[in-house]
Amino acid sequence: MVEPMADNPIFDRVAIIGVGLIGSSFARAGMAVGAFGTVIGFDTNQTHLDEAMALGVVDEIAPDLTAAIAGADLVLLAVPVGAYRALGPSLKASLKDGAIVTDVGSVKADAIGALAPFMPQGVSLVPGHPVAGTELSGPAAGFADLFKDRWCILTPPTGTDPGAVEKVASLWRKIGSDVEIMDADHHDRVLAITSHLPHLIAYTIVATASDLEDQLRADNEGTDTVTTTEVIKYSAGGFRDFTRIAGSNPVMWRDVFLANREAVLEMLGRFSEDLTALQRAIRWGEADTLENLFTRTREIRQGVVEAGQAGRFVPTENGEKEPKDS
Amino acid sequence: MVEPMADNPIFDRVAIIGVGLIGSSFARAGMAVGAFGTVIGFDTNQTHLDEAMALGVVDEIAPDLTAAIAGADLVLLAVPVGAYRALGPSLKASLKDGAIVTDVGSVKADAIGALAPFMPQGVSLVPGHPVAGTELSGPAAGFADLFKDRWCILTPPTGTDPGAVEKVASLWRKIGSDVEIMDADHHDRVLAITSHLPHLIAYTIVATASDLEDQLRADNEGTDTVTTTEVIKYSAGGFRDFTRIAGSNPVMWRDVFLANREAVLEMLGRFSEDLTALQRAIRWGEADTLENLFTRTREIRQGVVEAGQAGRFVPTENGEKEPKDS
Repeated sequence: MVEPMADNPIFDRVAIIGVGLIGSSFARAGMAVGAFGTVIGFDTNQTHLDEAMALGVVDEIAPDLTAAIAGADLVLLAVPVGAYRALGPSLKASLKDGAIVTDVGSVKADAIGALAPFMPQGVSLVPGHPVAGTELSGPAAGFADLFKDRWCILTPPTGTDPGAVEKVASLWRKIGSDVEIMDADHHDRVLAITSHLPHLIAYTIVATASDLEDQLRADNEGTDTVTTTEVIKYSAGGFRDFTRIAGSNPVMWRDVFLANREAVLEMLGRFSEDLTALQRAIRWGEADTLENLFTRTREIRQGVVEAGQAGRFVPTENGEKEPKDS
Repeated sequence: MVEPMADNPIFDRVAIIGVGLIGSSFARAGMAVGAFGTVIGFDTNQTHLDEAMALGVVDEIAPDLTAAIAGADLVLLAVPVGAYRALGPSLKASLKDGAIVTDVGSVKADAIGALAPFMPQGVSLVPGHPVAGTELSGPAAGFADLFKDRWCILTPPTGTDPGAVEKVASLWRKIGSDVEIMDADHHDRVLAITSHLPHLIAYTIVATASDLEDQLRADNEGTDTVTTTEVIKYSAGGFRDFTRIAGSNPVMWRDVFLANREAVLEMLGRFSEDLTALQRAIRWGEADTLENLFTRTREIRQGVVEAGQAGRFVPTENGEKEPKDS
């Protein structure tokens, strides 16, 4: 936990648009360090909004988007990136002079394309992406430490007021993140390989596995197939890690793939080529090709461990150390 | 920890062939519950063998394979499945009457094909596969609780002495595993989707990612590429889980893919078709196709969590619950 320091908020009035896992964690984190004066929540999901209020994640809930935005010093968008375009007119109409708009979307060039045209004079757009999350959704799943020791990438468009960028950066630092400034297009390429493609692959293999049983039913033959029960039962062999990723928010990820289409398709193309090459090596029994590749990939793992990105570690009763966060 | 009960060993003399992660964990687990009288270790890696002795994982080390096998009541093979065939003649020559041979290989039909022809009269072959592991290798990485609350699948060939099967099953139960008896071919199909394909995919994506930087160097162009440093830095977005799997023992996995070629290629074919369909949906902006698929995969995750296969959980300081073992 970070120390509270209530008398010096960075932003007096903060509007959180979308109080799910990320939005509610952001509200909790900012309040925990005294960075926010008052937090106003808004969400099109009324159940989530009521839940956030009941949990004390927000101080007030707004009756509509306009009411949430009006008077806010900081507006945080924590909704699927596909919903940004619909927010534009309300933002344009209600943002106060000097306000800062930021977001937590996983795709940045598309976010800027959707939001920049609606920013009034005197308002700064400082897009952000905290590289953190869990496979859970909703306000109850959030927690103040979600962003601690994780990277937050800011991708301000050229010409953005440096003071606004620094203000947003200092907020993220105060809630425990390491901040990096990056070009939006470059961000989208980096995340296409480190996050979007892994999610796409995980979703695919889980679907492939669940189809095995369905196909047996459809064929109604005596084929030796694999049931979903078996897939679940023996998932500890590796599949389990994919199911965790494939349990992530479906709408959020649908939007990510559509908004970052070009970079995702490029990385997917490279992956498919490499997979086909491995497939051929297996078919032709090329032992050396396989072993060399499997040895090379170990080095990357070592890099991840050394960079402290393998998760925070907690000792367990048998002395193992295991990652604490997802 | 399971309670020790030293005076009633299930096997008096146990030979562990291969004292790496799995072999050494098996030795530790069996000794911890008093299931073994004396444990003899053998490994072609002399460093590992000395390490196992120094760690107290084995009681004795054998100078050669024949010495390890001779007089053993139970012989456990914990070496890559590709090495089984070379062990055959020594097993045939040295196994004592009434001995049981078992293994921990991830592929079972090929294991039986390699070992069964070398089993003398009066010796039982009870192949096994504990669905447990970590991405670490070597005797120091092993621990007694590795198999606790995990499945162990036994695939005895038709005609195997039921008494021998039960003896091996009771050993696994005593060290905390749930035992399942399965046909070897069926095992290989189940594991192809739940373990082998996930590993193949993880190895591939990690290789794809590490090639991005190399290509930049080769091209020497100004292309906006992604460096390995960036891949590692932002790996928390999903890639990290793949690097863990792709850090597994290269020789063991090379052998798995070669020994289970047919089932792996079939599952890989299905996966590739599904991935191509998703690729097309992204290219054509088919939002509903994506969302429907991503929603369907959530149910499987729920099944994994409910089946208790999502890892053992330990509470951490912020109240999260995280998997304890891999």
